[in-house]
Amino acid sequence: MSGKSTAKDATRRLAAIDLGSNSFHLLVANYQDSQLQVVAKMGEKVQLAAGLDDQENFTDAAMDRALACLERFAPFLAGVAAADLRIVGTNALRSARNARALIDRAEALIGHPIEIIGGREEARLIYLGAAHALAEVHGRRLIVDIGGGSTEFIIGEDFQPQELESLHMGCVAYTGAFFANGELSEKRFRRAEMAALSELANIQRQYCRLGWQDPIGSSGTIKAVAAVTGARGDGDATLIERDALMKLRKRLVGFGQLDKVAMEGLKEDRARVFPAGVAILCAVFEAFDLQRMRYSDGALREGVLFDLIGRNTPEDSRRHSVELLMRRYSVEASHADHVTETAMVAFDQVSESWALGEEQRLFLVWAAQLHEIGLAISHSQFHRHGAYLIEYSDLTGFSRPEQQALAFLVRAHRRKFAQKELEALPSAIQPTYCRLARLLRLAVMLNHPRPEQAPVNFQLACNGDDLHLSLPEISFQALLLNDLEQEADYQKTAGLALTYDV
Amino acid sequence: MSGKSTAKDATRRLAAIDLGSNSFHLLVANYQDSQLQVVAKMGEKVQLAAGLDDQENFTDAAMDRALACLERFAPFLAGVAAADLRIVGTNALRSARNARALIDRAEALIGHPIEIIGGREEARLIYLGAAHALAEVHGRRLIVDIGGGSTEFIIGEDFQPQELESLHMGCVAYTGAFFANGELSEKRFRRAEMAALSELANIQRQYCRLGWQDPIGSSGTIKAVAAVTGARGDGDATLIERDALMKLRKRLVGFGQLDKVAMEGLKEDRARVFPAGVAILCAVFEAFDLQRMRYSDGALREGVLFDLIGRNTPEDSRRHSVELLMRRYSVEASHADHVTETAMVAFDQVSESWALGEEQRLFLVWAAQLHEIGLAISHSQFHRHGAYLIEYSDLTGFSRPEQQALAFLVRAHRRKFAQKELEALPSAIQPTYCRLARLLRLAVMLNHPRPEQAPVNFQLACNGDDLHLSLPEISFQALLLNDLEQEADYQKTAGLALTYDV
Repeated sequence: MSGKSTAKDATRRLAAIDLGSNSFHLLVANYQDSQLQVVAKMGEKVQLAAGLDDQENFTDAAMDRALACLERFAPFLAGVAAADLRIVGTNALRSARNARALIDRAEALIGHPIEIIGGREEARLIYLGAAHALAEVHGRRLIVDIGGGSTEFIIGEDFQPQELESLHMGCVAYTGAFFANGELSEKRFRRAEMAALSELANIQRQYCRLGWQDPIGSSGTIKAVAAVTGARGDGDATLIERDALMKLRKRLVGFGQLDKVAMEGLKEDRARVFPAGVAILCAVFEAFDLQRMRYSDGALREGVLFDLIGRNTPEDSRRHSVELLMRRYSVEASHADHVTETAMVAFDQVSESWALGEEQRLFLVWAAQLHEIGLAISHSQFHRHGAYLIEYSDLTGFSRPEQQALAFLVRAHRRKFAQKELEALPSAIQPTYCRLARLLRLAVMLNHPRPEQAPVNFQLACNGDDLHLSLPEISFQALLLNDLEQEADYQKTAGLALTYDV
Repeated sequence: MSGKSTAKDATRRLAAIDLGSNSFHLLVANYQDSQLQVVAKMGEKVQLAAGLDDQENFTDAAMDRALACLERFAPFLAGVAAADLRIVGTNALRSARNARALIDRAEALIGHPIEIIGGREEARLIYLGAAHALAEVHGRRLIVDIGGGSTEFIIGEDFQPQELESLHMGCVAYTGAFFANGELSEKRFRRAEMAALSELANIQRQYCRLGWQDPIGSSGTIKAVAAVTGARGDGDATLIERDALMKLRKRLVGFGQLDKVAMEGLKEDRARVFPAGVAILCAVFEAFDLQRMRYSDGALREGVLFDLIGRNTPEDSRRHSVELLMRRYSVEASHADHVTETAMVAFDQVSESWALGEEQRLFLVWAAQLHEIGLAISHSQFHRHGAYLIEYSDLTGFSRPEQQALAFLVRAHRRKFAQKELEALPSAIQPTYCRLARLLRLAVMLNHPRPEQAPVNFQLACNGDDLHLSLPEISFQALLLNDLEQEADYQKTAGLALTYDV
């Protein structure tokens, strides 16, 4: 038999390589129907910046490491059109005196030009990558990317960067400059911090004047800090609290030597350059007086890909993501629209008493639009399948916690009230999401037999968390009464009151 | 803002209603691009057959239950074209003297004719529903469907029924006939069995002469038996073993009264008619000398839908299901084909020593075709997402255990060897699936950089479970050596030996 499929391939292949001072990264994606789908990812700690000698020349060993890595990347580039490939080099390649020699050999090996990009261009691309990965926030955000040789600072809003800076400090460079003999002491740590603070003085005032709502960190150093502090703290491996960072600093100094650094959540091949990275991060917290920072995926290489496809305009990316999901999973749009319409009527009747705002309205709309996507997998347990798809899909514009909240609504839209799943949400949002889930359930129930018109003539009243539904005569009275009885029972089991008159 | 989606609805809506002697069922599906997607399902235990008086007339109460149920079903039929709706009535409606009165009122309520179908037509439709739900087997199978008023027996192969019979015995009718006063004793149970054996005598010889490989049961009674015995046994809730059935019979008799019957896995509203159903099933095991029976979804109502769309010809349904998945999740077909090609070369080199046959080859092909479907969700952990999609999707032609086995291969195709997931498979197939997973991993690795040609010039040799791979010079030598080192390490951790020379 032939296993060949008959599906057509009309896909454009894109690739980005980021020759960083600490790591080289490869990202390969397919681009089709406006969707970017990553098909291969590789990263290697080449530590180019660590391979600079006293004369600021790459050592032979460093060159060999770089070329060996590129030899492993190269096979992925076959079949990628020249216009769809971009290879960028950053700080180490900007500063090494013999960079050209390495670049020549690398270009010969890869068969494609390598661009050494400036710090600002690097910052712009980092911002683009991060903006796609980040939740939409209204207002400005600060993005910090601590690399091996340089650290980028960007303030921007949506897809528009407003300040772009690249400072000469990085975890590999600072390891060489302040911890060269392997000793790790309070004194040395503080000297590294002071050097970073001195760099930061160049942008501190200007950045603080502009201000931001949301400090975000990308890059391996910040990911590792979040993982290490998360492993000891409350388990949120994306949030770095100032206190936890200060404790981490103390623990690091306690090791006494770079070679002894070992912590849960920290990969071995990062351990040696980790203290210098943490010193830079401590300086950033100090200079900008930060209380916390959130780690986010999406960095230089992602930015390069988005730049290649010209996707750098502001867009309502969450809504776009919802539409992509609806299309992929063939949602019956008319039914989704009816449920949305009914849900909005219900929402408007209780939003004031229940303190539900615009953001909550959006989540209810999206949940109504997506509640049936799991049908594409199977009718059996489709609310669970839908929740799985929403929780794990790459949804541009949504943060992970947002995806979890949206997944919860879809999970909870039918059958027994999903109490356990509700309690898995952050406790602060549980009451709100419990309310949104109840509104969605009512909207789904009122559209159960998929009527041609969405029912909107009803009165929903709340008294605290008690709900009362008044309905006029409706064409599918018998079914609805049955459903309402069942639903009141489900809610009662969850300690919630739903009454009704028809 | 408007939450309206822009996706088009070009979907045909189909519906089937099955007015059974015990339960009424509603099934609504969308039909688009040759795909049938169930969007609503309802079932109610109307117990029509229990509502027959001494004169074989439906009581008023039974009629009211039936009409109340149809009133709840009716709203789902709005918007379904007459040609896309079929309502069938079976035994109770065939036999009641005043059936016409109920049908007239029901037709007036629903606005659509109700067909009372004969036992053979019922059997044909049941077979069609079951054939779609069942794994492909080569050879004949026996399908048994114990209804409320009649029990259907079909022998068939693929989509072709060869023997179709409907016998006058059912769980509701027999409850009335043998357990009317609520007493449950060995004597009464045996009388019910004897009556069933007497019915079965009509077909016993003819059916046994034809023979079958695979006895399959559908319907609520058999589902409940599988659930109850599975809850106490090894947890396989689809397999009924003869011993377990005999134990269940003994437990039931021990309750002494119908009202006291209560067991884990048995729904309350089935308890009263369960002993009579079990008596019929015991008689079936006895008459056909069965050792086991597997429960399968897919019954009359599914058959009606498949019949409506004319899908009743033999087809390679598993392959068709694999192609649908590839299309839905936009698999890059050329890459999937390359991995398949390499996997087949590897398979052929070891299949004899490893005792791998045609069926195993098919599973390796399908796993190679599908290994990347999880990319549609996210690159991160895509092997897990792919396994989820395969495990939970409705895949025509595949049995649940087959889906689990295929999901395992996709789960295990990259990263650490999925030892825990291997051990979750039935122990008999673990060694084989371990081998298939190793072949797939090699094929994926050899195509890692997505070369234009699938690598096929290699020698794979096995010595027991030790594998040795010999490779000629290959264009991506450096990457491959790196990958091989990693892979040998992964396999070693799982207690498997992989050596190589390049």
